[in-house]
Amino acid sequence: MSGRILVTGGAGCIGSDLAEALLNRGESVTVLDNLSSGKYEHIEPLLSRPGFRFLEGDLLDPAAIDTALEDAAMVYHLAANPDVKFVPGDPTDKDLQQNTLCTYNVLEAMRRHSVRRLAFSSTSAIYGICERQPIAEDQAPHPISLYGATKLSCEAMIGAFQHLFDFDCWIFRFANVVGPKVRKRGRTVIGDFIDKLRRDPTRLQILGNGRQAKSYLLSEECVEAMLFAVANASRGIHTFNLGCDDSLSVERIAQMVESALGLTRVAHEYTGGEGGWLGDVPRFRLDVTAINQLGWHARYNSEEAVALAIEASLSKEAVCRP
Amino acid sequence: MSGRILVTGGAGCIGSDLAEALLNRGESVTVLDNLSSGKYEHIEPLLSRPGFRFLEGDLLDPAAIDTALEDAAMVYHLAANPDVKFVPGDPTDKDLQQNTLCTYNVLEAMRRHSVRRLAFSSTSAIYGICERQPIAEDQAPHPISLYGATKLSCEAMIGAFQHLFDFDCWIFRFANVVGPKVRKRGRTVIGDFIDKLRRDPTRLQILGNGRQAKSYLLSEECVEAMLFAVANASRGIHTFNLGCDDSLSVERIAQMVESALGLTRVAHEYTGGEGGWLGDVPRFRLDVTAINQLGWHARYNSEEAVALAIEASLSKEAVCRP
Repeated sequence: MSGRILVTGGAGCIGSDLAEALLNRGESVTVLDNLSSGKYEHIEPLLSRPGFRFLEGDLLDPAAIDTALEDAAMVYHLAANPDVKFVPGDPTDKDLQQNTLCTYNVLEAMRRHSVRRLAFSSTSAIYGICERQPIAEDQAPHPISLYGATKLSCEAMIGAFQHLFDFDCWIFRFANVVGPKVRKRGRTVIGDFIDKLRRDPTRLQILGNGRQAKSYLLSEECVEAMLFAVANASRGIHTFNLGCDDSLSVERIAQMVESALGLTRVAHEYTGGEGGWLGDVPRFRLDVTAINQLGWHARYNSEEAVALAIEASLSKEAVCRP
Repeated sequence: MSGRILVTGGAGCIGSDLAEALLNRGESVTVLDNLSSGKYEHIEPLLSRPGFRFLEGDLLDPAAIDTALEDAAMVYHLAANPDVKFVPGDPTDKDLQQNTLCTYNVLEAMRRHSVRRLAFSSTSAIYGICERQPIAEDQAPHPISLYGATKLSCEAMIGAFQHLFDFDCWIFRFANVVGPKVRKRGRTVIGDFIDKLRRDPTRLQILGNGRQAKSYLLSEECVEAMLFAVANASRGIHTFNLGCDDSLSVERIAQMVESALGLTRVAHEYTGGEGGWLGDVPRFRLDVTAINQLGWHARYNSEEAVALAIEASLSKEAVCRP
């Protein structure tokens, strides 16, 4: 493609994997990230790569987007509030700001700059609690979290811009994405369990009743699927669930982490309730027929993806952590 | 119900009909309206009614909502940008501001004030272009207008607040609501045709190809349906299409207006294209089984509703217009 590719949130776990994959394919890449949850260490290895440019900036600042869109031909908009959990006392407008308003700013800047190709990281959280499982893309979404609600807001605005201003758009509803990169404490179940067991290897507090069961996808596979879909789904608007069609219980992940750490007889304590936190969707599986029919299949099922992520987290931990 | 009922946008065509109906049922009513599209004349007849209070204020100003929520037990949130049409050159954030952000402000203020009953005026525009007709509430929405997209954003946030903060919510997806009250020029097809034919009774410019066909509902019936649903659908969250299950073509409405004005042989000119404007959904019918099964049925079909609205507009015009 002629022109640069802008990756918003490109210093995040998935965004930096994407930026690297794009560079590997010979693209010129601009990363725009405010480093609020993205990390400089994720893009540091890319700084010397030809065609790479990093801009520290916030999507709430239209001038930052204007600069980032210079010479851009396409945007992968991955920047978002990554804290899916709502904790009582949190401001209720965090997701509105970081998801809805930032996405509007990206869309409007793209319109002004005549950049009309957009890939967007949405989420399986938009579906909410569904009787029909696995969940296909044409199922009506009923998000129960502010994160899911604002991601659906973004999807809706993207659809309107696509129609009104002749954009080409790819919307990806991610399963739970896991990988070797270290996230903020407690943000993912794997990191949460590793942290807790490092502190006390005799017991593990599990949020909810442990029977939550979700679909997991490795970050590198998530990136591969996005690139495949953008290359192979033609003009217009396309929405894909990204993941495999199975799910994995939180209880099983606890066992896997314990086993990887060489721990036995860890006492499990449950905070109780169906979901792990307010707005948590306790159980879901994704229907991934659409992306499969396009020609992409996840190589790893949820258990394999989580096993690889645990292994990578522990080996990386050995290298990176103080 | 003990406590006042707040109607946002209560000086609008539907809002003022709702405020009046609530007063008639013995409720105390606060109307909050910034009079940007609502009209003082709509609420003037209510000012002397016991229990009625009017506040001029904007939902972008949280302090205005705080005042309006004093002693409130429930909110009918009808305030919105009523200009469904997007015209090139318009700001693209009008609906984001007036729909998404205002609705967030209402939700957050309700949470803070522990007012947890909310009825919301959504729209059939959230569905977009659907192959399956009539459209039921569980069909996945794909809005193609900024108006529809931001109304879906509002629905999504309402769903999240309902789940997180234990609200009771009634979401109403309106058909095209028509009635005797005069709207801004060009905002409704009936007013548009009357205006144009008053200026030149020999010819009529019709947006699109005239074959657009939509579902219409009389404002007084819309109000009645909302009150019925709130009274009869229990706690939790409920979403209802409001209308009848037929549709009426724009061409037929033109004939009806001409006939009501005593005009014959009017030359029709078409701007062309499937839709009347950018983001217009050319054809839809609503599946209204859900509200019917609850026990409410529209008395008038689309043609009857439009005929009554034309008649009322013309008789009101005779009285009110200079």
